[in-house]
Amino acid sequence: MTESAHDTLGKPLTGWRLKAYTIIFEADTRAGRLFDQWLIAIILASVALVVFSSVDSIGQKYDSLFNGLEWLFTIAFTLEYVARLACVRHPLRYALSFYGVIDLLALLPTYLALLVPEIHALIDVRVLRLLRVFRVFKLTAYVTEYQSLGRALKGSRRKIMVFLSAVLMIVLVMGTVMYVVEGPANGFSSVPTSVYWAITTMTTVGFGDITPKTDLGRFIASLMMLLGWGTLAVPTGIVTAEMTMRRVEEPTTTRTCHECLTEGHQSEANYCLHCGAMLPAYQRDT
Amino acid sequence: MTESAHDTLGKPLTGWRLKAYTIIFEADTRAGRLFDQWLIAIILASVALVVFSSVDSIGQKYDSLFNGLEWLFTIAFTLEYVARLACVRHPLRYALSFYGVIDLLALLPTYLALLVPEIHALIDVRVLRLLRVFRVFKLTAYVTEYQSLGRALKGSRRKIMVFLSAVLMIVLVMGTVMYVVEGPANGFSSVPTSVYWAITTMTTVGFGDITPKTDLGRFIASLMMLLGWGTLAVPTGIVTAEMTMRRVEEPTTTRTCHECLTEGHQSEANYCLHCGAMLPAYQRDT
Amino acid sequence: MTESAHDTLGKPLTGWRLKAYTIIFEADTRAGRLFDQWLIAIILASVALVVFSSVDSIGQKYDSLFNGLEWLFTIAFTLEYVARLACVRHPLRYALSFYGVIDLLALLPTYLALLVPEIHALIDVRVLRLLRVFRVFKLTAYVTEYQSLGRALKGSRRKIMVFLSAVLMIVLVMGTVMYVVEGPANGFSSVPTSVYWAITTMTTVGFGDITPKTDLGRFIASLMMLLGWGTLAVPTGIVTAEMTMRRVEEPTTTRTCHECLTEGHQSEANYCLHCGAMLPAYQRDT
Amino acid sequence: MTESAHDTLGKPLTGWRLKAYTIIFEADTRAGRLFDQWLIAIILASVALVVFSSVDSIGQKYDSLFNGLEWLFTIAFTLEYVARLACVRHPLRYALSFYGVIDLLALLPTYLALLVPEIHALIDVRVLRLLRVFRVFKLTAYVTEYQSLGRALKGSRRKIMVFLSAVLMIVLVMGTVMYVVEGPANGFSSVPTSVYWAITTMTTVGFGDITPKTDLGRFIASLMMLLGWGTLAVPTGIVTAEMTMRRVEEPTTTRTCHECLTEGHQSEANYCLHCGAMLPAYQRDT
Repeated sequence: MTESAHDTLGKPLTGWRLKAYTIIFEADTRAGRLFDQWLIAIILASVALVVFSSVDSIGQKYDSLFNGLEWLFTIAFTLEYVARLACVRHPLRYALSFYGVIDLLALLPTYLALLVPEIHALIDVRVLRLLRVFRVFKLTAYVTEYQSLGRALKGSRRKIMVFLSAVLMIVLVMGTVMYVVEGPANGFSSVPTSVYWAITTMTTVGFGDITPKTDLGRFIASLMMLLGWGTLAVPTGIVTAEMTMRRVEEPTTTRTCHECLTEGHQSEANYCLHCGAMLPAYQRDT
Repeated sequence: MTESAHDTLGKPLTGWRLKAYTIIFEADTRAGRLFDQWLIAIILASVALVVFSSVDSIGQKYDSLFNGLEWLFTIAFTLEYVARLACVRHPLRYALSFYGVIDLLALLPTYLALLVPEIHALIDVRVLRLLRVFRVFKLTAYVTEYQSLGRALKGSRRKIMVFLSAVLMIVLVMGTVMYVVEGPANGFSSVPTSVYWAITTMTTVGFGDITPKTDLGRFIASLMMLLGWGTLAVPTGIVTAEMTMRRVEEPTTTRTCHECLTEGHQSEANYCLHCGAMLPAYQRDT
Repeated sequence: MTESAHDTLGKPLTGWRLKAYTIIFEADTRAGRLFDQWLIAIILASVALVVFSSVDSIGQKYDSLFNGLEWLFTIAFTLEYVARLACVRHPLRYALSFYGVIDLLALLPTYLALLVPEIHALIDVRVLRLLRVFRVFKLTAYVTEYQSLGRALKGSRRKIMVFLSAVLMIVLVMGTVMYVVEGPANGFSSVPTSVYWAITTMTTVGFGDITPKTDLGRFIASLMMLLGWGTLAVPTGIVTAEMTMRRVEEPTTTRTCHECLTEGHQSEANYCLHCGAMLPAYQRDT
Repeated sequence: MTESAHDTLGKPLTGWRLKAYTIIFEADTRAGRLFDQWLIAIILASVALVVFSSVDSIGQKYDSLFNGLEWLFTIAFTLEYVARLACVRHPLRYALSFYGVIDLLALLPTYLALLVPEIHALIDVRVLRLLRVFRVFKLTAYVTEYQSLGRALKGSRRKIMVFLSAVLMIVLVMGTVMYVVEGPANGFSSVPTSVYWAITTMTTVGFGDITPKTDLGRFIASLMMLLGWGTLAVPTGIVTAEMTMRRVEEPTTTRTCHECLTEGHQSEANYCLHCGAMLPAYQRDT
């Protein structure tokens, strides 16, 4: 990849933009770590605010205080979001990335709640921003574990899909059978409701809000439980078999490619392993 | 196997029957794939129809529309079933095969519902026809995973039966004990009901529609739960041990023997691996 | 072991006693297999009788018929028990063996029910006699699986005990804490009841007959559920680890030592592998 | 480590202090074993006392008897605690050690209950003192199993934390979504309550005290259950993978270092493996 190709995508980061980028997007310098630690503190405070304000006895007492704090947090997050857009090379690409979408989702509920008050509590989506926590504490090892878990799940992706499709078929057929056997009189008011009951039973959750009353219904329910019991063994077997064969690998950094926002380049890397763009010199202090 | 042996079983497929067979039963030509894709779309639409028509608020509003659509689907499926019977070499053998039975079961409820309206919802059995989905999308890998799961279950078949028989005995004895201890006054109205409760408890479903009220009953229930907890580990252990020792094998096709309807012959195969009948030249485009 | 030693224990089986022993205790001759098959059929009929007679609608209708049949079965089992005592070399040893105790327990409820009618349903203990089923169908392979499962459990015996003792302590402490936090007003009426609730929660059964109502109680319950979730993994891990390392061994017969009633001697064995007593020639037809 | 270093920490144990130490803290001499056996008997009696006195029907009848016994046990435990402090080289270090804190916690509730009667039942914390049981019965093998279990959990510590943090985020987001969808009218009265419900559902406990009533709520609940089902597989996979790779090691004694209270030195050890202090000659009889 040549420099001219870079020009067509956006100017390489220099001056304050490079500095801001290193602070906001990475966490290997002191300033970057400090920024992320404050960010996480504010996210946690903001989530706690929503949780407590939903409790009637607390929420009504400090109503105006909570309201003020929430707008404070939302404005802070809005400023941060704008700053991220400003210092990144390809704002649109960031806006559409995984973290970009979450960052936006964390802002929207407060503004939308002006129009539709009910969705106010959805501000809790902010908790997803905590996924950044793995980056802040330099928890390289944890990131590796995370990736190891993710890879085990990915490796057994197809087995899990086959398994899920089988479960969905069973649940639909059994739900329909129970709808026919028990009928609306015993709480099985429609096929979707019966399927909900069947899932409740197969996963051994068993709320008990809907339960079979007839002898035949109980007999079928018993079969389903024993079946669900055996079936529980399958995903466990899949994941376990996958995990016993996988071992963790070398640690990574929080360096982020300026082009495609891929994370975790090694400290000695010069080019992005994903898009081939040149990486700036590694910023670090310890 | 000689040609004369074939004559006694039915004429080898030629002309329009071979063509129809390749389209309806296989999915390696473009026409065959298209046929199966349309089939799945109709199956899904037909199942969705039954599910939504069972919801009172929707079902009563569009009653006549739903009724019309259902007869349309049923007639389409009936035609397809007849076509399958017509182009296969041994119609009876197909009718008694796994897919043949399911295909018939998918038709019956609509016709039977004319006599017994209650079983109308059983049309949902149609969802089982979706088992063909694995074939349509050429999901060879998924089929392999499916077989791998199936083989793991088959390999531990005997262990699972021994385990199930032990569980059934425990459940019968414990159910009887609880019937004696708690009695009809506390909801344990008969031995079958108590056994239903015991299964509910051992599988950790725990609906809560029947619960022990006496101290002794609660003590026995506690023991059963701890026992059920440990027992849950057994099927998991069986399946996991089986799965860690099995690896998937080479991909397969959707070629189906004209004689015995065995699926999945390799593209270079000349004879059926199950009954030894000669396979016609492999039809494929990519 | 010399012949004189045998004399002190009881005469070696000869004549009708040897014949009866081979029929009643073993299942490798045709007569022996027939005897056991009939026995199992009667056991199943007898258990079904008790189960159905407990259902009010059926039980009251055929009251006298059920009563008559039950006495018939009980007398048949009593005769069989006496025959077993008569043809075995050491009657007391048989009476105290595992199967001997079960055989006796299967008789007692009917006789005792003359005095205490409530325990009548305990006749279902008869189902345990079905453990003999593994012997009848010459399910040698199943027996091996059974032993394999048993050995896996036995091998992890100590781990399971350590685990169970830890669970019992947690459950007692958490139950007490919930008793203090929620109190009798919310259904946690005593420490045993709270411990019952704690077991219900840790094992993920969750009946819902007793549930926390206060915020603190719900917080503690949430911690317990997450803890219980993680803990579920431990017995599974133990059993799976044990099972992946064990493989099944060679098949066995149903030959039973006349001295100590040890089962499963190999067909070419001359002496009991447990007590060293001489085994009579192997009776078999196939 | 020289003798002068020891002087600065406390005098080496001699005379009655060494004797008392060997009896109270170790269990390899006859007197030491006897002491611990009595201790466990008293702990069990004391716990049983609290459990039974909480049952109304029993508790009110023998109120004064239970009260007297409890003070007797508490005074016995207080004396034992003082004796431990007296004969150990570094009383403060013992008081702050794991067992020291538990020993103190076992005393406090009785004294505090004079001020706050409600916490009376917390005396059950005494059951934790039973952790000493592993020592008393010289269950070396069990201790090893215990350590083996502990090490497996420790080895997968980071994986479990990553997993738990992911679960907490999911539970918080899903709880909030359900609070918005179902609302206080259907029992989801606040975000903490909804999170409690979400944990109940994900862990498959399913009390059923709060259940979704709307169709959308039930659909989301169904997704959560299937998700929870798959997620159950992860901790199992982690622990199993860890356990299949770990094997137990050599047996240990109950020798306890006089300096730092580390347990389990080998019988031939001369110096503490933790702090390097000289160990007195090993006291043992068998």
